[in-house]
Amino acid sequence: MMFASDNASGAHPAVLEALVVANAGAAMPYGNDAATARVEDMIREIFEAPRARVLLVATGTAANAITLAGLCPPWSAIYCHDIAHIEIDECNAPEFYTGGAKLAHVAGDHAMMGPDALEARLAISGPGVVHMAQPGAVSITQATERGAVYPVEAIARLAAIANAHGLPVHMDGTRLANALAATGASPAEMTHRAGVDVLCLGATKAGVMAAEAIVLFEPEARPNLAWELELRRKRGGHLFSKMRFVAAQLEAWLSDGLWLELAAHANAMASRLHDGLAGLGLVADTPPGANLMYLHLPGPTHAALQAAGAVYYTHDRPFGAVEARLVTSWSTTPAEVETFLATCHTAAA
Amino acid sequence: MMFASDNASGAHPAVLEALVVANAGAAMPYGNDAATARVEDMIREIFEAPRARVLLVATGTAANAITLAGLCPPWSAIYCHDIAHIEIDECNAPEFYTGGAKLAHVAGDHAMMGPDALEARLAISGPGVVHMAQPGAVSITQATERGAVYPVEAIARLAAIANAHGLPVHMDGTRLANALAATGASPAEMTHRAGVDVLCLGATKAGVMAAEAIVLFEPEARPNLAWELELRRKRGGHLFSKMRFVAAQLEAWLSDGLWLELAAHANAMASRLHDGLAGLGLVADTPPGANLMYLHLPGPTHAALQAAGAVYYTHDRPFGAVEARLVTSWSTTPAEVETFLATCHTAAA
Amino acid sequence: MMFASDNASGAHPAVLEALVVANAGAAMPYGNDAATARVEDMIREIFEAPRARVLLVATGTAANAITLAGLCPPWSAIYCHDIAHIEIDECNAPEFYTGGAKLAHVAGDHAMMGPDALEARLAISGPGVVHMAQPGAVSITQATERGAVYPVEAIARLAAIANAHGLPVHMDGTRLANALAATGASPAEMTHRAGVDVLCLGATKAGVMAAEAIVLFEPEARPNLAWELELRRKRGGHLFSKMRFVAAQLEAWLSDGLWLELAAHANAMASRLHDGLAGLGLVADTPPGANLMYLHLPGPTHAALQAAGAVYYTHDRPFGAVEARLVTSWSTTPAEVETFLATCHTAAA
Amino acid sequence: MMFASDNASGAHPAVLEALVVANAGAAMPYGNDAATARVEDMIREIFEAPRARVLLVATGTAANAITLAGLCPPWSAIYCHDIAHIEIDECNAPEFYTGGAKLAHVAGDHAMMGPDALEARLAISGPGVVHMAQPGAVSITQATERGAVYPVEAIARLAAIANAHGLPVHMDGTRLANALAATGASPAEMTHRAGVDVLCLGATKAGVMAAEAIVLFEPEARPNLAWELELRRKRGGHLFSKMRFVAAQLEAWLSDGLWLELAAHANAMASRLHDGLAGLGLVADTPPGANLMYLHLPGPTHAALQAAGAVYYTHDRPFGAVEARLVTSWSTTPAEVETFLATCHTAAA
Repeated sequence: MMFASDNASGAHPAVLEALVVANAGAAMPYGNDAATARVEDMIREIFEAPRARVLLVATGTAANAITLAGLCPPWSAIYCHDIAHIEIDECNAPEFYTGGAKLAHVAGDHAMMGPDALEARLAISGPGVVHMAQPGAVSITQATERGAVYPVEAIARLAAIANAHGLPVHMDGTRLANALAATGASPAEMTHRAGVDVLCLGATKAGVMAAEAIVLFEPEARPNLAWELELRRKRGGHLFSKMRFVAAQLEAWLSDGLWLELAAHANAMASRLHDGLAGLGLVADTPPGANLMYLHLPGPTHAALQAAGAVYYTHDRPFGAVEARLVTSWSTTPAEVETFLATCHTAAA
Repeated sequence: MMFASDNASGAHPAVLEALVVANAGAAMPYGNDAATARVEDMIREIFEAPRARVLLVATGTAANAITLAGLCPPWSAIYCHDIAHIEIDECNAPEFYTGGAKLAHVAGDHAMMGPDALEARLAISGPGVVHMAQPGAVSITQATERGAVYPVEAIARLAAIANAHGLPVHMDGTRLANALAATGASPAEMTHRAGVDVLCLGATKAGVMAAEAIVLFEPEARPNLAWELELRRKRGGHLFSKMRFVAAQLEAWLSDGLWLELAAHANAMASRLHDGLAGLGLVADTPPGANLMYLHLPGPTHAALQAAGAVYYTHDRPFGAVEARLVTSWSTTPAEVETFLATCHTAAA
Repeated sequence: MMFASDNASGAHPAVLEALVVANAGAAMPYGNDAATARVEDMIREIFEAPRARVLLVATGTAANAITLAGLCPPWSAIYCHDIAHIEIDECNAPEFYTGGAKLAHVAGDHAMMGPDALEARLAISGPGVVHMAQPGAVSITQATERGAVYPVEAIARLAAIANAHGLPVHMDGTRLANALAATGASPAEMTHRAGVDVLCLGATKAGVMAAEAIVLFEPEARPNLAWELELRRKRGGHLFSKMRFVAAQLEAWLSDGLWLELAAHANAMASRLHDGLAGLGLVADTPPGANLMYLHLPGPTHAALQAAGAVYYTHDRPFGAVEARLVTSWSTTPAEVETFLATCHTAAA
Repeated sequence: MMFASDNASGAHPAVLEALVVANAGAAMPYGNDAATARVEDMIREIFEAPRARVLLVATGTAANAITLAGLCPPWSAIYCHDIAHIEIDECNAPEFYTGGAKLAHVAGDHAMMGPDALEARLAISGPGVVHMAQPGAVSITQATERGAVYPVEAIARLAAIANAHGLPVHMDGTRLANALAATGASPAEMTHRAGVDVLCLGATKAGVMAAEAIVLFEPEARPNLAWELELRRKRGGHLFSKMRFVAAQLEAWLSDGLWLELAAHANAMASRLHDGLAGLGLVADTPPGANLMYLHLPGPTHAALQAAGAVYYTHDRPFGAVEARLVTSWSTTPAEVETFLATCHTAAA
């Protein structure tokens, strides 16, 4: 019963098969290979963004930090939710890559930035005031750290605010596949058509070993950015020599809609878990949507789950209770969910 | 006929098989898995360094830059050869990770730092002079960018000079396996016993997909360094969530001496090429040793090789000649070498 | 009627006289001169800190940023009030000098960090968790950006919390002189005896042209820090060659208690303004103490003051009202205060 | 007998008088004052550059590092002489401000970059090659660290090479006044008309306390650069609140040609010293021009000078000899020079 994180899952078998295929023969390094070219084309097609520039990297932190560094000068502020991954889980990687930009907090329920809060925060920013951090970019995490999914319209509204202030929009799409599967929106609708300028498309948590893609939708709008991102990737140590193996993972994952299928499965497992727990009176603090949830577990229930071998992260709460984070993945089985629920049921009895 | 780079090779089949094995089931992320623990132990054993701390990353640039940042403060100078990889091929990654340290040049034949040149360079450094970059570390590349292999004694001599100046020694061991295979020295003899403090052990070019290890031999000597390297790895975006897949590659590569066997093969192919070319009057500028060489090719010979599909990097030289870099790998075949030689022979005739 | 900022004031005549004296003859550069040695001794004596190391710089931002960079590694968090000068008025200088540390917000009235808020913030920090910014330092501004003065006991309490978490305490003492004059505490009591590890002592706003001092009270506690601060000062471009002129300013300012006399005058002018305005129903939002206050001015009053030539910064408020910041200085005259009050009185009538 | 450095001199009396004048009354901070506006206009007029943007700072290192950071991204290389001040005397300040750019060496006699050496160095740079530092800027020091003065035509030739490679030209003009006085060239001829894009105009060593100016000659050519330099100045801690005092120094220094008069005096003292020493068989290694020279002194001569109270920096040479650096300044007196020469004469006898 692994509910610790979607990154505790392995890779889908199709990904490993693709690696074997990719391994045949020699290939020019650093992305000058056929697999990389193919996956770039696939991403352009899937996102209906024929001019997009695509850069492959291997971790989500690399994707986010390189992108933000390209968008935001060292003297700028990046507007994100208080508990965005870039703020609390990347050990100052955005500050490192940007050369010292600041992350400015915007509040909102379920780790979603609220439009009013964004407006209010921007209203006290100081564009043109030399003493103050200059507005840099708005960064949206889809799905959020609390498992919520921004509707397309919510993204569009935040992007409109950003644009009104002359700011580009970055999407941390570590769990974009889950958000797409949850809403049925198309990749284009949820990203560039809603105003996202640069997407960090996550695949690692969603079924591959280690692969992510930075997607710059409108390179003409920022003529030097694509090349700058390449240089930043290189000097960050993220330009893989045997890039074909990163590309092959993504190619397998994106082929025939596998990525959305895997995400739909993870979401379905989360939903089943969510509903089952609610039926036991254990109500998650976020409506179901993507593949993670937070909820409070009574001490005895937690103890029983531990004894049964369930794995998940917790924060201590009074009276022996815990706040638990439960995450499902492409590899979560219905049996794991049912065993978890049964254990809770027994403990509560 | 691929002689462009050892990073144009794929991964050894054993590496891919190991990935399939590693993929079974869930595993805790970020290196808290059994495969990572095992490979750390293997490295400690192979290097006869029971207290060593090991950090896995996926690119050589990451390994070098993170290590140098841990050893060298931003106001320091790193002493390396003029054409060291860290100086000319990493797009200022060391400067980025260190926060602005300087790479100071030390000359020497075949891209090996000369001990006298190192002494001379250190003699004009300014320890304790606030206006000058403070001495930071000595960085040795084994084997060098020109295919030369430092004998163990040469490393020991450079390390002694470094230590006399209070400086730690970093080894960029991208091709350490080739150097070990070429000399028969043991891993311990060529590294910590010769005075190397931190090794960046390269596997990517030597038979895996993407895996490198930072090996800190004496963590007690620098009590905060191991933890600092972990933090630097994380904020550099190089802490892989599904670390087991990095570990599995290294485990397969290091098992049963495979790594040395593959390196010996690459060296043998280079030696065969070297000798064959010399027999045709095409003498490489570096004595044989590791798996790469530079030499001048007459224009017609270069043209014939191109026509025959040989792939290698060149620099233009007068009269249509080129300086060619030829690199062999674990996957180079004798047939490739023989075809290359035959083409040269025919062209010369 | 200049109430815009204390940095709109000039230098006290004694400071200029000291410059003339310091100008006689040649002097060794970069602080190797007699005036610098004398002022370092004066600061050690005045602060009753015989082992303290003193570094002179010329701006408060430089003093703060260099100090914080010495205390806080790039992967750390600096705990400060939401509207601390280092957070909102230094254009990411702390982030720049630290190489990407993060400023973490601690709330509190009148821009003073509350001890409970500090405890709460530290409770969710992640020492030892590689994904999270590591706790770096606590930074206290005395007096605060809202004109409040921390009592000595409040500083001691915050410092005790910091120490319990293993964190050093930085004091941004841009207006320390005002705080000392307001409370009667001794320089030692308000700084190192209350737990401050490094003080940035501000003189620029308090009567000189451009001079500040970084005071490291217990250099033995952090053996490499003093030298590191010297290197950071140099590479920040803040090591003045003709240091005697920075020293001379401080020497004049600190001699015979002039600094406290000037601060007491500024405070007295602020108090007179504060009370006079309160008598007119214009109540400042912070109790009197140091030399600045915020208050709301009705539109007509603001207009009358502008017409009369009063200078101060404002933020717009509804119905034509403004929030005004009024700052007095060593050079503010009673006549300026009285004219300001009279103008308000007339406007209200 | 002070020949250690021109920064051991004080400020010209006119500079101190100007400070007294500037001190009258209040003035808006951060350069929003009349004196700053006036000195900016003076610089535009003197340099015949009506559109130039001028930023005042207080140290040469700050001027150079801020400027280079504006011109050169972190992944770039700055081409300068091996012993340029930015390379050996600023403790990695350029690397710090640029965020990790690299300084690439160009050789040449008397610390002047040779045009052929610059061409050769640029020929092995890698524009467009992602692995290599990208060409950033060419930096020329006028006069050089060895006391040589580039003729206008030499600057123009280097600038033409830079421009042919798409690179901007930075001039470290710490001793530009000496170079102008030595050659009779006009400020415009020696800078923007010769192809210099940004000048760091030094006044500190040439007669003021602490003041330098960054002069961006053609702001239209780089539309965002002037604002970026302002932000970089602020976040570097170099935006002085009481800017009028920096401005007043420069205004006095530039008025009525005082700056060139003081430089001509310093040069004349150096020339007198140079010729006198040559007459004693002590030949400097650089032809006379600006206000500094290097030469070898026999041991007994050095000892006699030390005994007589002469102050200068030395490097040890065999047999008790030293290489001495002798620097004159605006305040060097003929008597100092004569006493120095007489001491040498006596020692040699």
